[in-house]
Amino acid sequence: MQVGERPEGSDRRHHVVVVGAGFAGLNVARRLGRAASDTPLRITLVDRHNHHTFQPLLYQVATAGLESDSIGHSVRGLFRRLPVDVRLGTVVGVDWDARRVELDDGASLDFDTVVFAAGAESADYGIEGVSEHAFMLKWIPDALRLRNHLLRQFERVESHPELIEQGALNFVVAGGGPTGVELSGAIAELVEHVVQRDHPNVDIAKVRVVLVEMMDALLGTYSQASQRYARRALEERGVEVRTDTAIEAVEADEVRLSDGERIPTATVVWTAGVRANPLADVLGLEQGKGGRVKVAGDLRVPGRADAFVVGDLAAVTGKDGQVLPQLAPVAIQQGQHVADQIVRLRRGEPTAPFRYRDRGTMATIGRRDAIAELALGVKLHGSLAWLSWLGLHLLYLVGFRNRVAVLGNWAYAYLTYDRAARLIIELEPPPGDDDDRAQGAHR
Amino acid sequence: MQVGERPEGSDRRHHVVVVGAGFAGLNVARRLGRAASDTPLRITLVDRHNHHTFQPLLYQVATAGLESDSIGHSVRGLFRRLPVDVRLGTVVGVDWDARRVELDDGASLDFDTVVFAAGAESADYGIEGVSEHAFMLKWIPDALRLRNHLLRQFERVESHPELIEQGALNFVVAGGGPTGVELSGAIAELVEHVVQRDHPNVDIAKVRVVLVEMMDALLGTYSQASQRYARRALEERGVEVRTDTAIEAVEADEVRLSDGERIPTATVVWTAGVRANPLADVLGLEQGKGGRVKVAGDLRVPGRADAFVVGDLAAVTGKDGQVLPQLAPVAIQQGQHVADQIVRLRRGEPTAPFRYRDRGTMATIGRRDAIAELALGVKLHGSLAWLSWLGLHLLYLVGFRNRVAVLGNWAYAYLTYDRAARLIIELEPPPGDDDDRAQGAHR
Repeated sequence: MQVGERPEGSDRRHHVVVVGAGFAGLNVARRLGRAASDTPLRITLVDRHNHHTFQPLLYQVATAGLESDSIGHSVRGLFRRLPVDVRLGTVVGVDWDARRVELDDGASLDFDTVVFAAGAESADYGIEGVSEHAFMLKWIPDALRLRNHLLRQFERVESHPELIEQGALNFVVAGGGPTGVELSGAIAELVEHVVQRDHPNVDIAKVRVVLVEMMDALLGTYSQASQRYARRALEERGVEVRTDTAIEAVEADEVRLSDGERIPTATVVWTAGVRANPLADVLGLEQGKGGRVKVAGDLRVPGRADAFVVGDLAAVTGKDGQVLPQLAPVAIQQGQHVADQIVRLRRGEPTAPFRYRDRGTMATIGRRDAIAELALGVKLHGSLAWLSWLGLHLLYLVGFRNRVAVLGNWAYAYLTYDRAARLIIELEPPPGDDDDRAQGAHR
Repeated sequence: MQVGERPEGSDRRHHVVVVGAGFAGLNVARRLGRAASDTPLRITLVDRHNHHTFQPLLYQVATAGLESDSIGHSVRGLFRRLPVDVRLGTVVGVDWDARRVELDDGASLDFDTVVFAAGAESADYGIEGVSEHAFMLKWIPDALRLRNHLLRQFERVESHPELIEQGALNFVVAGGGPTGVELSGAIAELVEHVVQRDHPNVDIAKVRVVLVEMMDALLGTYSQASQRYARRALEERGVEVRTDTAIEAVEADEVRLSDGERIPTATVVWTAGVRANPLADVLGLEQGKGGRVKVAGDLRVPGRADAFVVGDLAAVTGKDGQVLPQLAPVAIQQGQHVADQIVRLRRGEPTAPFRYRDRGTMATIGRRDAIAELALGVKLHGSLAWLSWLGLHLLYLVGFRNRVAVLGNWAYAYLTYDRAARLIIELEPPPGDDDDRAQGAHR
């Protein structure tokens, strides 16, 4: 069949448009695709990337532990055997009356049911200089940019040791949540295991890794015992943990803290907050904290039978009265729930409310060290938690091939203390100039 | 030891500076490093990338067959166990009187002996529009840029099928040497095996892969039988082979050929020529064709006892009176030879002339198909040549881990007809905007 000859107008099947191929959207589309043999449905999945990004492992790409391709999976590849149309594009608006979503390339998609699963993005809370000078860690290019930058700092001080006094080897991570804990631990281990061997001329005692958290403890949602464990484990690895400290401003060559200290640095990584995808702001729907869209118990938009919001984009109240956290398990369960509700509605059955089954959370700190808080009050620290973390992340990782590749990388890193992916691959070569050094100390 | 405290002045060992970590430079440094236990030598290897690039497989990265990190290897990682200092930087000049090379970051390196192994770069021969509009294939970012672009063309025609008439699915490869043959075959297979399954709405009969060669045959240095075999094998895969045809000009939306035809296209890949690294032009030495530096039989600069030039940068005449081709085996053998001569000179022995042992050349065309012309007149076509090609490239690939990764990718691709690395990872995200679609149809 030729492009453009798709029987758009003649296809009478109920058309579900899913916006976003993160954990939530992927699960909506996959489960609907499997149901489509029984229930006549046309399914279209739209995403602005051609790949699903496994965001929990971005920090390992940033610290040279994993290759970027291992944590992404072609969206088209995932739906080869399911009746799901994939479309590359960014949804920029919705026409509720016409039941149509609008794409940035001028095209649009008519829907009978729409599921918004567009996720979240980094939020700078208006703090001066964050958007200009800080590194974010949300997509694969962010991780590659940070990896290039980290590795380049050590190369720069080989030629210009005076840059150490200007903070070239000070690495500041903003935000003491799981991402900040994992990233600062991983940077400390990169320095200890890799930089020390790669750069015998660099005194790694001059490296500072500083983790800054506004609240009085790391890992705010964890138990106090786990919080203390994380702090101690990071400090043992040489990370300076600064709780009760806010970032006042980020500048090109330093960061200003709320206690008045200024740390000279070329590297601030911002993991301190997320807000809903800006798409949430143009849907014309009621929004809660962080811009998330308020939804009813069955995850539908209040007052609309044909629209669901799921994952990080949705504000859903759990049984404890708190809004559910922006985590992969929540997104996965919500995606599956919405697919089931769409099938029920097509069969004329009523929807069921969503209930989150919390099986626990985990954060890794470093080599053979992690924290796991599981169901029934089980708390693990250390090696066993780390093994659980490895297993769970392999399980969640999309694609058999990626699992093999990641397992191989982890085994290699574990056995050799090495990081294979430590190439500086320039992301922004100047046009018509293949000499990447011409960029100098770009950020 | 702290940075800056290196005993530069007090180190009385003979200092060899090797410029370039390609096949030639890597082999000089490795062999010298191994000899340094017997012969007191200080060795410094300078490269503008922090990794060695295995250029023969760049076309596989560009066509989503291999992940980029598999064909690069950290230079520092290669020299952890050898007494070789690694320096990231671009050499921009030499002061022959002071015996010093100058780096782009303002630093310089004093040498007792210098080996220039800075390689070659793409040459556009002054043809209009090549440097502005054509894709090159020399470094990993080039390959990633081409991969993103190729994959994006198919995504674009999903939304805008009218772009097919404007040439969105016309892919033109300029140059019928091994790289052009391998790349055009790989694009044709990408379309047949991957695009057809990923994009069921796209009519792949509309795809054109055109290989343009100025001379009257592909693979100019091969036998006529091999040349004919390559042409037929490519044509069977749907590649249009246009010999006796020159590229007159490349424009943003078309390419003009010497026979007057204009092919509308957004994709011209330039593999039609190389010239010596621009460093050759500032050394003040006599240059031959393509800017290559003329050297004596022992690979030294005529009239200088302390300077060698090797690899693609050097013009060396073989026993048949022809200048040796710019191939990996030549570079490897020259690198080893120069290391040996430096050791001989340190021992007060005379240098020996370089003799190239030609063990043959190979080019792959596609799945289970290649051409090999080996020593003693052995010519292989088809499966056996392909297996030889696989084995040889695994052998030349630097690093045990890379070999395992590449072998794994090849096995996966062979068994599944799939290409794992088909992620569009934006190289040039607009600052402060993580929406990569905002770039539109960037080239």
